[in-house]
This record gives sequence, C-alpha cells and structure tokens, in this order.
Amino acid sequence: MGMTIAEKIAARAAKTSETKAGEIHTVELDYLMSNDGTTHLTIDMYRKLKHPRIADKDKLVWIVDHNVPCDSPKTAASQKKMRDFAKENGIRFYEGEGICHQIMIEKYVCPGQLVFGADSHTCAYGAVGAFGTGVGCTDYLYGMVTGQSWIMVPETLRFNLHGRLRDGVTARDLILTIIGKIGANGANYKAMEFAGDGMKNLNMSDRISICNLCVEAGAKTALMETDEITMEYLKAHGDRKPAAVFASDPDAVFAGVYEIELGEIVPVVAKPHFVDNIAPAEDVKGVAINEAFLGSCNNGRIEDLRLGASILRGRKVSPKVRFLVVPASREVYLQALEEGLLSVFSEAGAIIMNPNCSVCWGSCQGVIGKGEVLISTGTRNFKGRAGDKDSFVYLGSAATVTASAVKGEICTADQL
Amino acid sequence: MGMTIAEKIAARAAKTSETKAGEIHTVELDYLMSNDGTTHLTIDMYRKLKHPRIADKDKLVWIVDHNVPCDSPKTAASQKKMRDFAKENGIRFYEGEGICHQIMIEKYVCPGQLVFGADSHTCAYGAVGAFGTGVGCTDYLYGMVTGQSWIMVPETLRFNLHGRLRDGVTARDLILTIIGKIGANGANYKAMEFAGDGMKNLNMSDRISICNLCVEAGAKTALMETDEITMEYLKAHGDRKPAAVFASDPDAVFAGVYEIELGEIVPVVAKPHFVDNIAPAEDVKGVAINEAFLGSCNNGRIEDLRLGASILRGRKVSPKVRFLVVPASREVYLQALEEGLLSVFSEAGAIIMNPNCSVCWGSCQGVIGKGEVLISTGTRNFKGRAGDKDSFVYLGSAATVTASAVKGEICTADQL
Repeated sequence: MGMTIAEKIAARAAKTSETKAGEIHTVELDYLMSNDGTTHLTIDMYRKLKHPRIADKDKLVWIVDHNVPCDSPKTAASQKKMRDFAKENGIRFYEGEGICHQIMIEKYVCPGQLVFGADSHTCAYGAVGAFGTGVGCTDYLYGMVTGQSWIMVPETLRFNLHGRLRDGVTARDLILTIIGKIGANGANYKAMEFAGDGMKNLNMSDRISICNLCVEAGAKTALMETDEITMEYLKAHGDRKPAAVFASDPDAVFAGVYEIELGEIVPVVAKPHFVDNIAPAEDVKGVAINEAFLGSCNNGRIEDLRLGASILRGRKVSPKVRFLVVPASREVYLQALEEGLLSVFSEAGAIIMNPNCSVCWGSCQGVIGKGEVLISTGTRNFKGRAGDKDSFVYLGSAATVTASAVKGEICTADQL
Repeated sequence: MGMTIAEKIAARAAKTSETKAGEIHTVELDYLMSNDGTTHLTIDMYRKLKHPRIADKDKLVWIVDHNVPCDSPKTAASQKKMRDFAKENGIRFYEGEGICHQIMIEKYVCPGQLVFGADSHTCAYGAVGAFGTGVGCTDYLYGMVTGQSWIMVPETLRFNLHGRLRDGVTARDLILTIIGKIGANGANYKAMEFAGDGMKNLNMSDRISICNLCVEAGAKTALMETDEITMEYLKAHGDRKPAAVFASDPDAVFAGVYEIELGEIVPVVAKPHFVDNIAPAEDVKGVAINEAFLGSCNNGRIEDLRLGASILRGRKVSPKVRFLVVPASREVYLQALEEGLLSVFSEAGAIIMNPNCSVCWGSCQGVIGKGEVLISTGTRNFKGRAGDKDSFVYLGSAATVTASAVKGEICTADQL
C-alpha cells in the first residue's frame, strides 16, 4: 500500500522501507534545534546525567531569539549558560541573527529530513519538505545524547489547494481560514499535507507561513512536496541538496482530504483569545488598536515586509498606534535595507527592531498593557500572550496589520 | 561687575537685569521635558491637587524613551497613563522617536533658554547655549502647574579649551578626562562652562557629548557660547532662533578656571563602578568583554555612528561579543540608513536597535548578567547599571567601543 510523505520520512529516519500511521519507530534525527526558551533547562538536566555525552554535535543548532537583546539579569544568566556550553562543546550557536525557524530554513533543513526543535512552530520546516516537530526539553535531551528519538507515525490530513489567491489575500489568510475551519484540535497529532495545482502559486515564504501555523490546529507536523520552487530556494540558500524527495503515493491513506479553492479565501483575522476564533477581517473592521506588529517566524520575511511597505509608502502610521516592524533574520533585515523598505517603514513612523521573536513572544519587546489591543502577524493570540492578561490580540496578515497601523483601527488594505 | 552665562540666563529667566551666583530667584521656564522614567508619578501627584491646571501646555514636551518598545505590563500601564494624559491635555508627546535629550536639542531648545527636565542629563542643552538642569518629579509638577520654578544661581567653573583633539581622540575622551580630573563631586551645583579657541574644532555632536556628561561631575548645568557652529545647527534643525545669545563677560567671576590643551587628551575609559574612575584606555587594554554598546544621549549621534562604521568597515564583530548599535533618534537612524552605515553595522554582525536609551538605562534592552563585562558609550557605569549587580561596565568613546567589539577585548582603534 502507498505511503504519505510523513510515513516516507518516518521510514527513512527509522532506516526501514515502510512505516504506517500509528506505528512507533525509533528514528535517527537529522537536526536538533533549540532556543533560549528552554536550552538552559536541557543543560541543567544534561549535567545531572551519569554519563553525559553528545551523540553528534553537528546535529545541534542553538539559537538565542526569544529575549534578544537580553532583558534581565536572569535571562542573561540563562543565555550565558547556553553560550558557554555551546562553545565548550562545539555546538553551532547563533544570537542576534534572527528567529530560530527562519535561520533553520535559511541555512540547514533539507527535504526528507526529520528535525526535532524545542519550539512548537518547528512544523514550519514542512515548507522545505522536512518533518519538523516541536519537543520539550526532556525529549530534546534524549535526542542530544543519543542522536535518536522515537515517533508515532502520524496520520495525514491532505489539503488539495486549487487555483490562486486573489490580490490582497495572503497565505496567512489561507492557513488561518483552514485553522478556523478544522479548529484548534482539528489536526491533533496529525500531519497536515498541502498539495494540488495551487502550490505552484505559493512561494517559499507563503509555504513557510502555512506550515508554521499548523501546530495551532494541533498538528504534529506539516508537509509539502518538494518542487522547483523548493529547489530554487535551496539553491539560493547555500546550494543545499535534498536528503530525499518525497510525495505521497496515489494510493496513500489519508485521515481526511480537503479541497480548497484559493480564489475563495478572503482576508481574515483570528479574534481574541484563540487562533481558531476566525472571522472575515470585514467583520471586525473599526476595532481600535494600540499596537501593530509585523514580524515573527510566521510573517517576518522579505515578502511580508515588501507587502507592508507597499501599503505604507506615501502614508503615515497613525499617531494612535505603535507599529513594530521586526525582520525575521539578519538576511531579511539586510535585504529590506537594500531594497529601501526600512526607509519606508521608518519614514512612516514605524519602530524597526532587531531580528527576534519580539512581541509574538510578548515577554520583553512591545508588551501591551491592560485593555490594550494589538493586531499582529505573530503566531498566537492567547490571553496574555502579548502582555497584560486583560489585553487583546488579533492575528492578521502583513497587509491587514499594516493597513490597520495606518488607520488606527482594524481594516484591510483596500479599505484605506 | 560682569556676569557668567549662567548668571545671564538666570537673569533673563528671572526677568531682572542682573543675578549673582548664590542668589535665589523665581524663574520663568522655557521648556519642561519629562520622560517615561517618572512622568506617571507626576501625573499621580497632579491628580491629587486641589486645583490642577497646566500653566502653559506648549512648554511641556513628553517623551517615551526609557522602555521602548515597552517591556512589561507594568510599564505599559505607566506609558498609557502618560500617553492618555498628554492627549487629553494637548501636550507634545513622542514615543519611539528617540532619546529625550536628543529630541529636545534637535527640535526645541534654543540659546538663552532655561529648561527643566525630569532627567539628570538635561545639562546636555548647554551645547546650544541653554541652561538645562535635571529635576525630580515634584519640582517638575510645580513647573508644570505654574510655568515657573526657582533656582539658586550656580557658580561657574570655566574650562578654556585650546587647540584640537588628535586623530582617534574624541570629545568623550575629553569630558571623561575632565571628570576624572575634578572628580564626581568636583562641580557640585556649579555650572561647567566651556570656551576658548578649541571650541571651533568641536562640532555640535562633540559639544552635546561634553555638556551631557557634566552632571557626572555633579554640575547643576553645562554651558557653551553660541557661535557659528551653533547657529548652523539651529538653522538646519527647524531654523530656530536664539532666545538670547550670551557669553560670560571678561570680568565675570569664576569659581575656578582650567586651561586644557586638547592635543594632550588621549583615549580614556571610566572603569567600574564610577564615572570618575578614569584611566588611559591603554591601561585596560586586553580586558575581555561580553557586550559593546554604541548609543545613548551621550554618544549615539550620526558622527558617532560614522566613527564606529569607519572602524568596522571590512571587519567583523568578535563572535565573543554582542555589539548593540542604537541611534539616538529617528533623524539619526534615517541618516545612518541613507549613508549606508546601518548596512556596515549589520553586515559586520552588530545588532541594530530602535532609537531609545537601551542598555545605558539597563532595564530591558541588552542587560548583562553576573560577571559579564560591557564597554559602553552610555552615561554611567555604576554597579548594576547595565544589569546584574555583579557585572562590570567600562565607559569609552565610540572609537574605543567599536574597536573593542571587533577585538573582543578593550582596545583602541589603532590597536586593531
């Protein structure tokens, strides 16, 4: 019987010819990514081991991105622990270079790989045909020490995308719409696989945006076929070669199949306080905002900044709004600088930050207060996610966020 | 008998023809600047007044610069209070635009004026011939309600500067040297006045750097004569006109006179934990650093960024160092962007932040941990100023800081 992409990657990682959803396999990991959210905890546990060892330091990539630059003596101590350990053990280490997932996709992850990341949005790596999944720091430690781990092979939900998104509608509107449709538990422990003729109309940034957010529907991972668009991206980013190129077999078994007409998608927002609390942007038009955020691993790439700048050019940020613009990586930052986008944002009154998680993480940069409203391209809008427990986060696309920053209230670009 | 600049400005503000050091006068204030450090406290007190009123809202300038973007729900609440009050009362309000003193000098302060600021480095305004002084929030409130305040006219220490600084030596090295010489209490409640043939070799950025730091010698204010360099700056910044142009009379009485040969100044650093703990940079060569900071109201202007970038061009930031580069205002940011300096910094591996006080304030951006060492162009190096109470801050010039960031240890640019 045929296999899904998830089953094929699991088989490769388990060094076997076939796996089926529901089976548990011991797997070899290709990369283990960890960031400053939990790495210090991993190190603490590592040091308590009787025989501490790192199976293969070249599989580890450690990235400081959550509190950059550092915001307190306590996090400074955590980061120092991480930095010093990485140096002592020859582990690849980044800080100030951008958000972990963006760096992993720009520099490391290849099609066919299995990657564990100590961060829930590791599923983003499906955009380059890799099985990425988030783990806690104990599972991370096991992988670090053995180079291996285990997975239960997930069932797959297949999303066949047809046609093309309309002007002013983005991949983020698409994935938010899907999450709204299937719900926050709609893909629990499943792989969400995206295919169909519509894929050729989605660039790498769109694909990352889609895969990245699948965990918000409960997905174990997200996956896409490797095509010319993937290969071009890999070539332009270090001329990387696939570990394996997989597509689901025609007779693969899916737990569900959805047919989606891209042309029918409209701009949407996720209302407080759940990512699946989706409404057409039209329905929340006029909601006053205090802050707007264009950035994150979901929507802080050059394509997002281009879209935002195209709306902002010749306009000003509303004096009622703090508009934070945060490129997802140094590569994105420098590209935006070269294209003149940072000038557009700064001249319009935006606050341009260093590449980092920023207010998507909500712990130290752009925190909002009681009763305040943020519209964000970030990953989550849970209660208190961006600051005070009595604040409100709406999620929208780069276009909706920028337009709202100009107007001072939620609107879409064509309503400016 | 002749008067000093301080006495003349006091006389103008007191609407009298003459004042003498030691006299107490009721004075009319030209501007009252306040930032997010204490404005919320001022507002709290204001609201408890029996007859709250603002004497002249056009004298007030409120600037959020210490925690930008906001770092916690608590500061978000403080800033909201400030923002809302400013809006309700038509008070000029800035946030995300840069550091308060830089904005005041770029946009408002004129020669001959008396300006109170709820921040200790308000003495920077001497660079444009104004008497600026720092006050607490209670004194601020009195000024806000009445438009007036009182001062005891300060004695003046006169510094006659001769000649020209050598290549690689900056105005910051000069003022740090002076503070080292007279000590942290050396100018307590006095005006520090700078004059002499050397003034023509000091640009506005140099002058701001010098005046800004005088409070670290205990000075009530710092003052400089208004000359062609001042007038050119004012013309380029809103075509502002002096309120009055003052110079000390030939027979003015000074509490002390210092003759300083600029050509004898060498690069210096202030060692932990006092600003007057000055040593030649040569003496601390080789001290390993963890972080470097180029920014602040003292040294975050375009001239400082040009100097830093000229050293960094073609080099890389040491992997041992986080190098924070923080333009002092949006004007500086945009100029640095246009000149390609931000590209130089980012390509070399620096972390470019939004215009704000950043780690000079040390509460939320670039905080250092226990045992860590920062070399900084900031204003202070007190114990715990940049983070953990057991961390270490060295103060140096833009040149020394950048060179140290490259080398990973303290050095001057010619030692690279």
